[in-house]
Amino acid sequence: MFLTKVRSEGLAHLSYIVGDKGQAAVIDPRRDCQEYIEIAYAQGTAITHIFETHKHEDFISGAQELSRRTGATIHHGANLDFGFGSPVHEDDEFFVGNLLLRVLETPGHTDESISLVLTDTTTGSNPVAVFTGDALFVGDVGRTDFYPGQEEAKADLLYASLTEKILPLGDHVIVYPGHGAGSVCGSGMAEREFSTLGLERLNNPMLQLSRSDFVKRKSLENHVKPPYFSVMEEYNARGNAPRLDECALPTPMAVDDFAQAKQDGMQVVDLRMPEAIAGALIPSSLAIPLSMIPAYAGFFLKPSQKIGLIVDSYEQVKTAMRHFQRIGLDHVIGFIEEGLHAWEASGRCFERIPTVHVRDVVRRIQNEDKVTILDIRKENEFQAGHLRGSMHVFLGHLEERLEEIPKDRPVITFCGSGRRAIVAASVLKKHGFEEVENCLGSMQACAANGCPVVSYS
Amino acid sequence: MFLTKVRSEGLAHLSYIVGDKGQAAVIDPRRDCQEYIEIAYAQGTAITHIFETHKHEDFISGAQELSRRTGATIHHGANLDFGFGSPVHEDDEFFVGNLLLRVLETPGHTDESISLVLTDTTTGSNPVAVFTGDALFVGDVGRTDFYPGQEEAKADLLYASLTEKILPLGDHVIVYPGHGAGSVCGSGMAEREFSTLGLERLNNPMLQLSRSDFVKRKSLENHVKPPYFSVMEEYNARGNAPRLDECALPTPMAVDDFAQAKQDGMQVVDLRMPEAIAGALIPSSLAIPLSMIPAYAGFFLKPSQKIGLIVDSYEQVKTAMRHFQRIGLDHVIGFIEEGLHAWEASGRCFERIPTVHVRDVVRRIQNEDKVTILDIRKENEFQAGHLRGSMHVFLGHLEERLEEIPKDRPVITFCGSGRRAIVAASVLKKHGFEEVENCLGSMQACAANGCPVVSYS
Amino acid sequence: MFLTKVRSEGLAHLSYIVGDKGQAAVIDPRRDCQEYIEIAYAQGTAITHIFETHKHEDFISGAQELSRRTGATIHHGANLDFGFGSPVHEDDEFFVGNLLLRVLETPGHTDESISLVLTDTTTGSNPVAVFTGDALFVGDVGRTDFYPGQEEAKADLLYASLTEKILPLGDHVIVYPGHGAGSVCGSGMAEREFSTLGLERLNNPMLQLSRSDFVKRKSLENHVKPPYFSVMEEYNARGNAPRLDECALPTPMAVDDFAQAKQDGMQVVDLRMPEAIAGALIPSSLAIPLSMIPAYAGFFLKPSQKIGLIVDSYEQVKTAMRHFQRIGLDHVIGFIEEGLHAWEASGRCFERIPTVHVRDVVRRIQNEDKVTILDIRKENEFQAGHLRGSMHVFLGHLEERLEEIPKDRPVITFCGSGRRAIVAASVLKKHGFEEVENCLGSMQACAANGCPVVSYS
Amino acid sequence: MFLTKVRSEGLAHLSYIVGDKGQAAVIDPRRDCQEYIEIAYAQGTAITHIFETHKHEDFISGAQELSRRTGATIHHGANLDFGFGSPVHEDDEFFVGNLLLRVLETPGHTDESISLVLTDTTTGSNPVAVFTGDALFVGDVGRTDFYPGQEEAKADLLYASLTEKILPLGDHVIVYPGHGAGSVCGSGMAEREFSTLGLERLNNPMLQLSRSDFVKRKSLENHVKPPYFSVMEEYNARGNAPRLDECALPTPMAVDDFAQAKQDGMQVVDLRMPEAIAGALIPSSLAIPLSMIPAYAGFFLKPSQKIGLIVDSYEQVKTAMRHFQRIGLDHVIGFIEEGLHAWEASGRCFERIPTVHVRDVVRRIQNEDKVTILDIRKENEFQAGHLRGSMHVFLGHLEERLEEIPKDRPVITFCGSGRRAIVAASVLKKHGFEEVENCLGSMQACAANGCPVVSYS
Repeated sequence: MFLTKVRSEGLAHLSYIVGDKGQAAVIDPRRDCQEYIEIAYAQGTAITHIFETHKHEDFISGAQELSRRTGATIHHGANLDFGFGSPVHEDDEFFVGNLLLRVLETPGHTDESISLVLTDTTTGSNPVAVFTGDALFVGDVGRTDFYPGQEEAKADLLYASLTEKILPLGDHVIVYPGHGAGSVCGSGMAEREFSTLGLERLNNPMLQLSRSDFVKRKSLENHVKPPYFSVMEEYNARGNAPRLDECALPTPMAVDDFAQAKQDGMQVVDLRMPEAIAGALIPSSLAIPLSMIPAYAGFFLKPSQKIGLIVDSYEQVKTAMRHFQRIGLDHVIGFIEEGLHAWEASGRCFERIPTVHVRDVVRRIQNEDKVTILDIRKENEFQAGHLRGSMHVFLGHLEERLEEIPKDRPVITFCGSGRRAIVAASVLKKHGFEEVENCLGSMQACAANGCPVVSYS
Repeated sequence: MFLTKVRSEGLAHLSYIVGDKGQAAVIDPRRDCQEYIEIAYAQGTAITHIFETHKHEDFISGAQELSRRTGATIHHGANLDFGFGSPVHEDDEFFVGNLLLRVLETPGHTDESISLVLTDTTTGSNPVAVFTGDALFVGDVGRTDFYPGQEEAKADLLYASLTEKILPLGDHVIVYPGHGAGSVCGSGMAEREFSTLGLERLNNPMLQLSRSDFVKRKSLENHVKPPYFSVMEEYNARGNAPRLDECALPTPMAVDDFAQAKQDGMQVVDLRMPEAIAGALIPSSLAIPLSMIPAYAGFFLKPSQKIGLIVDSYEQVKTAMRHFQRIGLDHVIGFIEEGLHAWEASGRCFERIPTVHVRDVVRRIQNEDKVTILDIRKENEFQAGHLRGSMHVFLGHLEERLEEIPKDRPVITFCGSGRRAIVAASVLKKHGFEEVENCLGSMQACAANGCPVVSYS
Repeated sequence: MFLTKVRSEGLAHLSYIVGDKGQAAVIDPRRDCQEYIEIAYAQGTAITHIFETHKHEDFISGAQELSRRTGATIHHGANLDFGFGSPVHEDDEFFVGNLLLRVLETPGHTDESISLVLTDTTTGSNPVAVFTGDALFVGDVGRTDFYPGQEEAKADLLYASLTEKILPLGDHVIVYPGHGAGSVCGSGMAEREFSTLGLERLNNPMLQLSRSDFVKRKSLENHVKPPYFSVMEEYNARGNAPRLDECALPTPMAVDDFAQAKQDGMQVVDLRMPEAIAGALIPSSLAIPLSMIPAYAGFFLKPSQKIGLIVDSYEQVKTAMRHFQRIGLDHVIGFIEEGLHAWEASGRCFERIPTVHVRDVVRRIQNEDKVTILDIRKENEFQAGHLRGSMHVFLGHLEERLEEIPKDRPVITFCGSGRRAIVAASVLKKHGFEEVENCLGSMQACAANGCPVVSYS
Repeated sequence: MFLTKVRSEGLAHLSYIVGDKGQAAVIDPRRDCQEYIEIAYAQGTAITHIFETHKHEDFISGAQELSRRTGATIHHGANLDFGFGSPVHEDDEFFVGNLLLRVLETPGHTDESISLVLTDTTTGSNPVAVFTGDALFVGDVGRTDFYPGQEEAKADLLYASLTEKILPLGDHVIVYPGHGAGSVCGSGMAEREFSTLGLERLNNPMLQLSRSDFVKRKSLENHVKPPYFSVMEEYNARGNAPRLDECALPTPMAVDDFAQAKQDGMQVVDLRMPEAIAGALIPSSLAIPLSMIPAYAGFFLKPSQKIGLIVDSYEQVKTAMRHFQRIGLDHVIGFIEEGLHAWEASGRCFERIPTVHVRDVVRRIQNEDKVTILDIRKENEFQAGHLRGSMHVFLGHLEERLEEIPKDRPVITFCGSGRRAIVAASVLKKHGFEEVENCLGSMQACAANGCPVVSYS
């Protein structure tokens, strides 16, 4: 008997494989699914079942890919007409060796959301754990904003699922949620990824609310919805995402070829750290630090777009490809290793996005310098505290709101730490802003330096 | 924040590393401790604390080794005079980033046993999990037979620790025990390694008993105590196990050198599967399948003994060395790869331990053939059901009870599956028994074939 | 600049990747070609060229597969109408960075065979190395028996290629051949895989011969030609081998399912060592030790045949799949791990192929026991020395010559070491021979024991 | 039979392991010697012999460390009184399986230098290869400047060794040298690491010279001799380098602890790329890009010095530790991962070393701006071509010549590509130069941009 969590960094997506006596079930597999196979087969178990707790919005489901490789059957909630797999209903039961998985219909996040209750029949009939998908997280609950105009109804539905289906399973039940901290599918998740229903009942802020307060709070939430979500939704409903082995593989490119491809429309994406962008950046690049791809690449890149990467090493290409493929950006055609070294040596132009220390930002504010402090964090982060005089545009909306930003003065981009601000800075550069700087350390450093902070909360 | 379980296969020893904000604590580290370092450092955390829930009997603690490499402080219960580290007491608290570890004194298994209660201060003040060492397992509780003559008193102490200290933490608390199924530190553990106090309260058979029944049941238990335990106990109390980097490394040996070393007293240990032993075995070898080393090597080998291995590949040597070093068998001097291939090609003698199908065993019983069916399983296994007419000697006691076994007839060794029986068979061969056979499939196959089984339970 | 040899064990196939300044060429890639990509990309080089020194007979070329993944162009000799790539001619030149590859047409092994002369233009114009494909090996030269009836003409052609094209490049030139010792594409290759033209001129026995002696010697050679060669030849001429990512992946199977599939026609292939087969073997299995797959599986298995594996661990499945896929055995549908453990525990029947020590064989010969000593080595091995009274049938021809082997007496299979003899033994068992034994140690052990050996040479 | 080259990147040190029939010899092992063991044991060979072609100056020999772990005997030239191992003399022979290693005394680089001639006795008596240590490289020959005042005599000795001992072995002999391109032990080595004596006879510029020209040319060479060489020489002569397993391991450090340690004397070494240093640098850091450690760390750091690292990831620490330990910098006590992220977030000060495009450098030269272009390349590189008006100080001598550099104007550091220049720039910053910039792309980019270059050659 084994249960292994497989985490997709960045997406903070959590999937699970649970097996016993030659059989294994995977819950919410991701598209790059070989890892489940390696885990299962090393344990001598075939992958026999795949469960989707709901239709994912933020990544491509690996159910089809994994089923193709293993022959496992796919199961999902009945309240959506999926183009593949077979629907399950309340109290349906599936044995995986001596483990029993029972279906709970837990709508709210989506109509077809299900939870799966795990019982270990070798030790008793009490439920041991529950896979809650996007219904219940550690410290938060799922989004209910995917049905425009029905936010309140869905929130109410979720409340019922949580309080009438999930929590009654008992305090002793371990919770295995579909996402951890950092996911765009919630904002209040704890960093801790292990919990029980008892702990959530006691500590989860959302579970301390009355039904009406719960619904009200959910209705007021303001979640990001990157444009790529709609592509994911279609892929995941129809099961028609391209096969991974038919996607092109990026190759190392000579500087001349890279420059030519760029001229022919390839978007350069520079995956280095913000500090390195201060040294050199190919004009018109998007600077998206490697770890920021899952959360932000989907705002700025389209599935059909050709992409060329700047990386430190080939290992980073492999990591980046996983990130890109998980969200359907399948057209990465090439890359240059060792950063801009070869580009520089070719004598080609590069530009820079200088770094600014937070003290200089403060000094400039105090001097009343003509400068825009552009805070690109999420709405709730901004409201919780920001530098006096700073302008707020959420990074995901930046390209649509460029005209609001004054072009006649320097812009200093600002975020929680500097890694999202560099994305914003590169977007501005790309769109013709000449003096763009990136504040390193950002909000944390402000706190440490006693900077003047305005808070709305 | 991260919590990772590190499992030592065979010993079924479970250790844990938990970290947050640059700090990490390891609970019950094993001697080959580099893995904790890799986990911690990859997360950007230093290892700052090492906790020993109790003085281990079945493996060498890695506390000293890990402390030497990381500078971490060592902490253990106060009711034993350890030769290293510093004692902790009830309610002592240690912060690891935002995680809080609080000490519970939970004697019973040993006097100095402690449990560690984990609280995640970022989400509330309720305990999240408890590291129970050998006090509470999933489906079982710790042994209480280490203080001769005080079995009842220790069982009573353990009962109090469980019911007055641990269970009151609440049903919602996750349990992280020191061992899983297969450990010699218990016999009723569940295969499932994840649980909560609520689940244990509901399902753990030992926790369903009254205080007096609990004490009675514990007093009647019959656990194995291999001779190497006493070495472990001294190492772990004094902290004087040899440094790993000062232990000799085994080298590949030529057949001639191997034969010479054998003649000079080196014990040959053949790590291949029982089936292969049916093909060829160097005379006087001990056949201990690789996965059987942790549980049984300590009965037949002494810390000072020179050992030479027969393996399929060098990878197996590395696995075997981890197993041997964990129990203090540090004098493995060499090995031969690719099984007995080179030995055979050299024209040297080999012998065989033929395999027997369970149907043949039954047929021979029914024919009343002159043969000894030697069942070498544990007492409780034997009592739960065995072949009619079979003789019982527990594998660990075999060498002391050889004279009880008739030498005038064939012996068929018998266990649950065939992997322990081959150890017994090789021991018999080594001690001059001429006709020794090994029954493959054993008890499970008996059941499948409807063999005549006697049960005492 | 880098040059890396990629060896396919068992096939003893040697391929090469050579790169410089962002470009790389692969010579004679194998079907499982991801390794070339990893090597090239880690060096920051794209794979730009693929060369085939000739149409391979003994494995599936990876040219198409690699080209599909990298976009590299494929080049091969002009004297065959390949269904893909483009033909090259004498003195055609290709730059890979500062490295120059020049084509030498070197027919003989096949008509379209080419060699590639490597010059490092940064250090001078002298050739540095030559990739000789199957024209020249270390210690041997290529086979010339692929055009029935033209053996002498092809041998003469090869002599000319060697003495007029290759050797004149100079003693100082490093040789990179297409095969090493153990390949079925030659029989006299040295174990050493590195050499120079000077060394071959001095030491290669075939290059010490006059033209007429060379032709005579080649005409007398007697090479194996497994049935799967014809499939390889078609795949490699047309470029129509199935895409690797469309081949089924084997899954772990439950014993019941495995038994059912066997009944439905799946061939069980047992990859364990000969010694283990002495312990237990599923009836009708083929016993092919893992390392024997490349050389012998193609004699006994067909591309369309469903195969089920018995292995020790999943790692072995991965190794086996590489071996199977390289020779087009794409229908491995499942496997059982941990050897026959689960099969035995299910109580199902197993049989055995006992092992025999070489001394017992000799004793039986001397006793004039009624027994067939079946020597299944290659013709030349048999002639170089064999046990008095033994019968010779080459392993590859065994299934066609079964009726020659007496069924009324035990058969002892015999080879150089025991790993080929077990294949033969399992074939006999499968075809109803009841008493089959396998001699371990075999010819080497005979020598060590002073057994009576007959030699024809 | 196998022969594997083990390359130490950066040092461009080449060592070799050659094995046959259960035995293996290692030539010139490095201090981190586990890799030889893994290679040998996976091949079923013990490491039986260790040869030192000479006393190394540029790295710590692993002979003692490897001997300690394997029991292999150590052999080296007789013309130096080593504190360990045993001396060998001309024509001494050692068998490694069927391979024969014969000693050639080939002094010149050092007095005790030997070469080892490899013969494969299975194929003939002609030498197959020669391990030349630092006598002969691909495209160059060894340094002869280690005996002050005897440069000409040693050059003459080397000439004799090359022309009377090594070349006469024959054109067909493969050369395995002790270093490849990039080593400080030569300056003209080819990038190609494989060659033969014939190729060197034809192409090696040094072997085209008459004896007197050879001696003259060698006497004029100007090699770097970093201060750490003297430590290596003592370690390698006496065999008293510290055991690797007794060296401290660096741990992740919290920013506060790192800052405190820095204040207490720890030298911060920032291993990130030059571009990242343009973003942020802890004041007083040495910026040494990871790949520059082997060649330049020994100029700026002392064996006793405590070092703290700035890295992107823990993987880089492991790479850096190998580099540091190879040259005896054993006191790396801690590191911070993810670059300066945590440092910045703490609000602490950082400084920057801005990057300059080569066109701006040229423009400033043409404008006659008050700026120092500081070219820090090697003497021969500078002479082969440099920017008009640039000042030359070799990087290795920079700290001794700081007073020559004007402090009243900006300094732009300049090298072949930008990675050495950043070291220089950080040294200047550390010593109080305020305006320091680093030119990216450097000499290659100059060529591409048609910059005004002065050449002395």
